[in-house]
Amino acid sequence: MPPDKVTLPMDYEAYFAERLDALKSEGNYRIFADLERKVGAFPRAANHRDGGVRDITIWCSNDYLGMGMHDTVRGAMCEAINRSGAGAGGTRNISGTTHYHVLLEQELAAWHRKEAALTFTSGYVANLTTLMTLGAQIPDVVLFSDELNHNSMIEGVRHSRAPKKIWKHNDVAHLDKLMSEYPKDQPKVVVFESVYSMDGDIAPLDEIISCAEEHGAMTFLDEVHAVGMYGQRGSGVAERDGVADRVDIIQGTMGKAIGVVGGYIAGSARMIDFIRSFGAGFIFTTSLPPAVAAGALESVRYLKDHNELRERHQERAATAKHRLRERGIPVMPSVSHIVPVLVGDPTLCKQASDLLLDRYSIYVQPINYPTVPKGTERLRITPTPLHDDDAMDYLVDALCDVWQTLGIQKVPEAAE
Amino acid sequence: MPPDKVTLPMDYEAYFAERLDALKSEGNYRIFADLERKVGAFPRAANHRDGGVRDITIWCSNDYLGMGMHDTVRGAMCEAINRSGAGAGGTRNISGTTHYHVLLEQELAAWHRKEAALTFTSGYVANLTTLMTLGAQIPDVVLFSDELNHNSMIEGVRHSRAPKKIWKHNDVAHLDKLMSEYPKDQPKVVVFESVYSMDGDIAPLDEIISCAEEHGAMTFLDEVHAVGMYGQRGSGVAERDGVADRVDIIQGTMGKAIGVVGGYIAGSARMIDFIRSFGAGFIFTTSLPPAVAAGALESVRYLKDHNELRERHQERAATAKHRLRERGIPVMPSVSHIVPVLVGDPTLCKQASDLLLDRYSIYVQPINYPTVPKGTERLRITPTPLHDDDAMDYLVDALCDVWQTLGIQKVPEAAE
Ligand SMILES: Cc1ncc(COP(=O)(O)O)c(C=O)c1O
Ligand SMILES: Cc1ncc(COP(=O)(O)O)c(C=O)c1O
Repeated sequence: MPPDKVTLPMDYEAYFAERLDALKSEGNYRIFADLERKVGAFPRAANHRDGGVRDITIWCSNDYLGMGMHDTVRGAMCEAINRSGAGAGGTRNISGTTHYHVLLEQELAAWHRKEAALTFTSGYVANLTTLMTLGAQIPDVVLFSDELNHNSMIEGVRHSRAPKKIWKHNDVAHLDKLMSEYPKDQPKVVVFESVYSMDGDIAPLDEIISCAEEHGAMTFLDEVHAVGMYGQRGSGVAERDGVADRVDIIQGTMGKAIGVVGGYIAGSARMIDFIRSFGAGFIFTTSLPPAVAAGALESVRYLKDHNELRERHQERAATAKHRLRERGIPVMPSVSHIVPVLVGDPTLCKQASDLLLDRYSIYVQPINYPTVPKGTERLRITPTPLHDDDAMDYLVDALCDVWQTLGIQKVPEAAE
Repeated sequence: MPPDKVTLPMDYEAYFAERLDALKSEGNYRIFADLERKVGAFPRAANHRDGGVRDITIWCSNDYLGMGMHDTVRGAMCEAINRSGAGAGGTRNISGTTHYHVLLEQELAAWHRKEAALTFTSGYVANLTTLMTLGAQIPDVVLFSDELNHNSMIEGVRHSRAPKKIWKHNDVAHLDKLMSEYPKDQPKVVVFESVYSMDGDIAPLDEIISCAEEHGAMTFLDEVHAVGMYGQRGSGVAERDGVADRVDIIQGTMGKAIGVVGGYIAGSARMIDFIRSFGAGFIFTTSLPPAVAAGALESVRYLKDHNELRERHQERAATAKHRLRERGIPVMPSVSHIVPVLVGDPTLCKQASDLLLDRYSIYVQPINYPTVPKGTERLRITPTPLHDDDAMDYLVDALCDVWQTLGIQKVPEAAE
């Protein structure tokens, strides 16, 4: 440090302000909608804004089946709270394993027809911790990760510091090529999702798993946007496709279709015991409240037996896609329950969302970078079994008006 | 790969089994106690074991003040569940910000007398995400981390990939020396805790902060084992020591003294907005259930106004330390509410815990590696305001018997 220079400390506040201003000028600064969902009225909710409160309809919830509103789930939670208290009071090892956790893990394992399951505070932590632990602990392991994997998987792969290869999205030939560069006895983990939630496409599970088997790789499948929603018993796309027994690790969340919060993995008893014993993000944190475990447990039990909810869900999504496409709204080619509508510009996307809310009391959050690549900004619509025909009519008309008002690109009516 | 060699895939199951066996032979394999806490009877709980259920007393909960059992907290949670449902239904950005989150963040900010606060799914994720984001995003930043920091801080520092310097535990001269190697205008963050939860010692906040100020460093303080428990208004050791306004980032949990689950940071509005906007572990995950936010909110409100709970808590801990020391039980030199009792061997530590449970129905989990260094295995006792004199008498006698039976090292009665 030259002695003649007066050095001031870094101005941290100025730096934060500069970075936030850059976000704002790009159109990527996020404003969270302040909501109050309403039991009995979902998808209606109250929106607190500018000191006032108004009623709106939510069209972008990941409570995909409305289970977060369900009597059974709420009842189980309140009962657990009044029986066992608010929080667990400790990490899983230090007084924080409640009997609800034990029962939930048994139920999740049985649902996926696996030997064992392990819960985490979130799906995010389940991915991060499991992938970090496998990558850091298995000697010489190489991780093969789909290029569109969720941030939680990317971070898990990255932080493990194991060598990684990124394969082109859902491209099994490319995965095969990358794995061929390693001997069969070299440990490998193939890391992928079933339903990719921003585009709504579904991975070819059977082909990916066959490829992994050929190369002696373990498979790690994120079913976060599928559990509760696919398969006769609702345990996910691996069940629907009849390949669950060939997936080594199935990962899921209890925060979306299950309607509560938390994450988990299911697989062999030894693998689960290994992650339980070595996964830092599992070990060093307060465990989920007993009420969360109780609510998720009842939700899974219900979902197993109510395939009609899944049928209605798929019908609602298909109807929304069909009706929007009829009107020239550019629905992206989703094969799942997700209805992404392309805008392609962050500022326009935000404007479309604002106009929907202001003019129609319809809430669909704009999806911008970093959640999706720049240039593919979209409105991501998630019809639930509780969105009825009237709500659907109203949504379609509103979107047409917004597209018209803002001059957003439509597609020719014939296209589909 | 030599063509004449038959290569088999890696045997993953055998590898997991081998690692688990090694843990078992070291005495570090963990068995979780399966508990059911009981509202109205805490610290009594039911322990499910070997197909039976029996009543025990928990002496190792991190529900330090019993707030997880409190009427106010439970009532607020059930009300929120029946009003707004089980889960939030989305990430904070995509429909998952409820009005409860907004109110809670305002309350937490006011509690710590900061401009703003931000909640995370856990204290673990709050530490990991905030430190990763600061370390990865501030150009040329260097992180200075106390050697005994919690795993969540270590992982945050490590994963940020910023250059890091580890300073000797609570050694301000060493911190000063390390920071002196960098120019004043180079960005720095000093990362430390107030109460170190395994030893129960408390950092010299004023000195550490002064040192940081001199070198132009930001301060990041983990008050996970202090919020709710120190200071007239209960916001932590920084409040007690009158230095909260000089700490840039205060981090806390809602899963310990607050009695629920979740984590947070509090600080300047810009810093909070920066982490909100760039922190992957904040962005890409389902937000906490409205009921969790509602319960934590009521708990904080209560804690602010009930200093007598803190007084009783400190008295209980002091009494336990005093009475155990009188009997020659080796209480480690804790100055906080934590009562660590040294065993010094993992197998003996587990045996002591098992004997306490089997013979006395007292549950104190053994604390072994990796939570504490090998050779310092201990029983970590956490008296709460709800542990009465009878329970205390019984604990002291039980520990003496266990020490006797297993021949664990005592200290001379005069010592301390
Ligand atoms: C594919 C995927 N995996 C994991 C997660 C994280 O799950 P959770 O919300 O339970 O943290 C998400 C989204 O939140 C996701 O979209
Ligand atoms: C010092 C410290 N920081 C952070 C955490 C993590 O907080 P949480 O349990 O809310 O994840 C813990 C323990 O759990 C801790 O002991």
